[in-house]
Order: sequence, then C-alpha cells, then structure tokens
Amino acid sequence: MRPGLNSVIPLCYGLCAKHESLGERVVAIHLPFFTDQAFVTLATNDVYCQGALVLGQSLKNHRITRKLVILITSQVSSLLRDVLYKVFDEVIEVNLEDSADYVHLALLKRPELGVTFTKLHCWTLTHYSKCVFMDADTLVLCNIDELFDREELSAAPDSGWPDCFNSGVFVFRPSLETHSLLMQHAVKCGSFDGADQGLLNSFFSNWATSDIRKHLPFLYNLSSSTIYTYRPAFNKFGSDAKVVHFLGPAKPWHYKYNRQTGSVISESLTSESQHHVSFLDLWWKIYDESIVPFFDKLQHVAELESQEQTVSKLLSIQQKVKEPSAEDERRKWEEGRVDYMGKDAFARIQEKLDRFLQ
Amino acid sequence: MRPGLNSVIPLCYGLCAKHESLGERVVAIHLPFFTDQAFVTLATNDVYCQGALVLGQSLKNHRITRKLVILITSQVSSLLRDVLYKVFDEVIEVNLEDSADYVHLALLKRPELGVTFTKLHCWTLTHYSKCVFMDADTLVLCNIDELFDREELSAAPDSGWPDCFNSGVFVFRPSLETHSLLMQHAVKCGSFDGADQGLLNSFFSNWATSDIRKHLPFLYNLSSSTIYTYRPAFNKFGSDAKVVHFLGPAKPWHYKYNRQTGSVISESLTSESQHHVSFLDLWWKIYDESIVPFFDKLQHVAELESQEQTVSKLLSIQQKVKEPSAEDERRKWEEGRVDYMGKDAFARIQEKLDRFLQ
Repeated sequence: MRPGLNSVIPLCYGLCAKHESLGERVVAIHLPFFTDQAFVTLATNDVYCQGALVLGQSLKNHRITRKLVILITSQVSSLLRDVLYKVFDEVIEVNLEDSADYVHLALLKRPELGVTFTKLHCWTLTHYSKCVFMDADTLVLCNIDELFDREELSAAPDSGWPDCFNSGVFVFRPSLETHSLLMQHAVKCGSFDGADQGLLNSFFSNWATSDIRKHLPFLYNLSSSTIYTYRPAFNKFGSDAKVVHFLGPAKPWHYKYNRQTGSVISESLTSESQHHVSFLDLWWKIYDESIVPFFDKLQHVAELESQEQTVSKLLSIQQKVKEPSAEDERRKWEEGRVDYMGKDAFARIQEKLDRFLQ
Repeated sequence: MRPGLNSVIPLCYGLCAKHESLGERVVAIHLPFFTDQAFVTLATNDVYCQGALVLGQSLKNHRITRKLVILITSQVSSLLRDVLYKVFDEVIEVNLEDSADYVHLALLKRPELGVTFTKLHCWTLTHYSKCVFMDADTLVLCNIDELFDREELSAAPDSGWPDCFNSGVFVFRPSLETHSLLMQHAVKCGSFDGADQGLLNSFFSNWATSDIRKHLPFLYNLSSSTIYTYRPAFNKFGSDAKVVHFLGPAKPWHYKYNRQTGSVISESLTSESQHHVSFLDLWWKIYDESIVPFFDKLQHVAELESQEQTVSKLLSIQQKVKEPSAEDERRKWEEGRVDYMGKDAFARIQEKLDRFLQ
C-alpha cells in the first residue's frame, strides 16, 4: 500500500530553520505528511519519559513528515502524560492486563518479560502501515524520514555482537498476526538476553544473512560507546551520525546541566570523551529549550521556585543517580519535585550548538 | 576459473580424528586438495611467528584442503624460518625495497604504513586463484574451507564499528592490478586508522551496503573481547565459533602456560572470563603439542635445558610482557633463548581439551 499524501505541515522553526532561510527571508516549504506512518517510542516510567520527550522533540526539530506516537504504561504519572501530549500526536497506554491468558501464564514464570511484551505492542498499531521504533534513550541529529523506504525488519548492527541487530531503532509493519507470533515466540522460547533485543533477534533470525537492505547503516543507531571502542572509525564517519543511542547505564538524564555554559557536568567526563559530551549537551539543550517550557506552562515552576534556590543555574532531573522504583518515582513527580529552575539567556548554548551543527 | 582437483591428502590424526572413527576402526577419507587456493598469514617478527605457527597448525588439525602460505619480513630469524617451513607450504619473504618509487616516497612521509604495505603483498600471490587471509593472532576451531565459496572482498563485521569489516579474516583474489590500485590508494589517501583495516575499508568501501554474501558470519572472526561486551549473545551463539581472534594487547603468547594443568596462568583471568581462558588454553595446547617439537628437533632444547631449571612445568614465550623491538627480538632468538622446557605427559591437557571440543 502506498502511503497517502494527506496534509502539509508548516515550517518547523527548530534546529533546521537556517537551511530554509534565503538571506533574511524565511521560506515556508510545504512537505507531504504521511498520516499512515509513524515514529513510535516507549516509556515505562517518568524518568524514561524525559528521554522520550527529547527524542520526540529532536524528531520534530528535523521536520519529520510522519506521526509521533508513544506507548506508556500505567506507571507514568498524570503530569508526565500532560507533557507527552504536547510533543506526541498519540499517547497510548499499554495494559498487559488486556493480554491473552498464555501471556499472563508466561509472566508468572518470567516477570522480567513484562517490558519486552510492552514493546511488542507496537505491532498492534495497525492504523499505521509502517513505523520506525526508537528507544527513549536515542536522539535524532537530522531528518531520517528515508527510513520509511526500508522494509520490516530493518535495523542497524549491534556493536556488542554485530550479527545481531540493535533493537533501539528498527523499521516494522504493524500487524496483529506478527504481534501474535511474536508473543507466542516469547512465551515458547523466552529471550536469550532477557529483553526485547534477544527476542526480536531470534524471531527475525535471518537478519544477518538474508538482505543487505535490511541492514541500516550504523549511523542510524550510533552507540555512544563506540566513540571509544574504535575511535579512528568514529573520527572518520562520526560526523555523519544521524541517530545517537545512549546505551549503557549512564543516560543523559543522569547528568546535571549548566545552563550558562550549555554543558553537562560530570567528573568522569574527561577531554577524551568530548564527542560524547557534545551529544549530551545537545540532549540537554533540547530538554532545556523545548521541554522545560511545557512543564512551566503546567504551572509547576512557581511552586518549585519557592522551594528551591533560584540562584542556581544548574538543571537536573530528580533521582538522577539511582533509578527509582516506579512507585517512588510517581509519588515524587506527583508532588511536583522536579528541579528545573527558571530561565536563562541561551546565547552561549546557542553558540555552542551552532558550532556542533556546522 | 574452477579450482582443480589435483591431489589427495591423507587423514589428519589431529583434533578431528574422532569424527572419522567407526567404532574402533579409523577410516582414511580422501579429500580433494585445491592447490590453486591458499590460506595466507603474515608475521613481521619472531613473536608473531609463534601466533602464525599455531594458526597454521590449527588449520592443519582441521584437515584444510588448501595450501598454507606465510608472508614474512627480513626481521624474522633463521631459526623461526626453519620452523615455519615445518608448518607452511610456502614461506615468502616480502621486501618493501622491491616496491615502486612512489611507495618509497610514501613511506618516507608515513613510515607506519610499512606493515600495511606488507600485508597488501598478499594480492601479489597470483599463482593462487583465491585466498583467505588470516591474522597471526587468530585461531581456527573447525574446518573453514567453505570460506572459499565466497568472493572478494568477504569479511566479518568489526565489533568496534560494525559497518567496517575486520581485516583479521578476509577472502580475496590475488591480482597485480588490485595490488597496484591498493598501493596507489594507500599512498594517496593513507589509512584512517593507520593500519590495513582502515585502508581496506576505504578501498572496499561498499562492503557494508552492497552484498550480504560478502558479510561473513561474525563466528568466522569472533573477537575474544565480545565475550564480555554482549555476554548473552556469546552464551547463545559462541559455541558455534569457528575462528577466534585475540584482538587487543593481550595475545596468547603473553601468558604463561602450566603444562600439568593444561591452563594459562594470569592473575587477571577471573572466573568471569572462563570462555576466554578456554580459547587461550587451546592455543597453548596446540603450541605445546605441535610447535614445541619442531623446535626440539632443531636441537635447541638440550642447550636450553642446561641453562634453565628443568623442574619447572611452565611454558612461556620469551619477552612476553613487553613486545621487543625487531632488533632485540632477532638477537635473542638467534641466541637460542627460548624458554620452553622439556616434555610432560599430556593426559590432563588432553582430558580438558576433549571436554572443550565436545
């Protein structure tokens, strides 16, 4: 089925606006918008919602021409749901309770498969003909709409074991039949890594050997750790990165951000990891510029500023060191204890980002 | 050109002998031998020759049906050359001095390209129609003759940057024209990583996107470090490994080996890395069982035993901590200072290896 040409979107005045400027005049370009295709992500708690929000905003900044969808679970607080609606076209709560009996039985034996089953729900989005799934810890660096030219299941190699694909970014076709087969496969075979990546790789087991077009270039799912594992390759190809994936335990939201310098703060970030820092800074710049105002509008800032020191120029996300339990997290967010603190001039941040984007 | 069926080889009574046994009777199988195809490796000093010898022997143990060729440089001592002739069908000294003027000019500017240029010499082996190149720090775990069904340039992904192939194992077609183009490319563009891998990847630049058949399964070039980077995948697929590649600074010859227990000795080898240890043990088992006797026959053992304590059951390779300069190395080897020490019963080693191979 050929995607429909259903509407146009206005020019997005985000990071790409300069590409459309002719001298001083900004030209609006009418792009086709494919309402039957979507970028899809997932957040199972309020902390991961921060990642999903930045991912969604980074996609919008690069004028995507597809819908933006997020799957969430019941752990996500009402505050976060309100903010998600500002960025995403659809916010869909996934209830494992609605699943078939055999899924419930499987979860009794293997509760760790819960998040995996949740992710598999993306195949039920059958009002879309094709989708690109992206993990909430990815960040888009340019327009990537060309991914919709690929077929299911297209994904980039995993740097840990390159005959497996990394399930942080993949192209798929929603289908209730595929969903059912995947769920049955999960129940029958489990997952060799206890997560969705192992399951999807054993289900789409001929990915490594069957069709080169289903191998997305690594630049569409650049693990930030590869900056260190083969630095000469990063130096050669890294400037063409399209999606960075913050794999591993240190996520962008675990850092603090200095709004005046436009840089994250961490003792472990040495000069060796300048490229990694640039990606972290970019994440925080989007968070600070585009996501924080949504919280402001929901009028939690005034309340917060009275509790916190407004002098500080540091921005951080609550519970940044240890990932809290879903219960703790909901409680704290519902109490409005989020430590972003007022607004600052972004002159230096902008300057730094402009250098990065050139 | 179709490979010829020129001769037969007798049954190799190595590690694979059990596959040919029918009850108690051992059956000799006549296999076709392709004299116009070869496995090729490279050693630029005596230490790497140890690796090449074990690699060559591991190929022979698995009844390869192709020739065995090693390229060496002038730094390799006469003792080692004598031993190499016991394992390899051809020992070919490569002299960069024979290269064209533009190569000499390039080396004046970029002397580090010397080893890269040496490796490129494999394309000049035009008395073979097709070859498989293997680095001297690889070890073969089973027969891999099916690699000759692949075309140039077939290689496995590099785990550091999986859109690059790892140049430790690759299929190629010797051709003076390709050799010349590669040398010109090296002189003109250099190598993005200062070594052959960067050069070969920029020359065969469509490897990642053009033909899935040129993607060798990762199991043909399993970096020993991936045991740690994505352990669940190693646990799932690692038992099918065909070639292990001892990437990184810690090579098998840097360890000491206890001949009584059949195990390498190292304080840094914890229980976490048992799989890695198994590969190291296998390397040393081959070295001790098949390579040491060649040195013995060259009558250097008697001389050595008088200098060293014969009580010790430890086997090690001289200069194991710090890689010596080529000059130091030649001098020490030429003085016969190699510390392998007499013979021992291999009952326990054999038992351990049998368990490994099952």
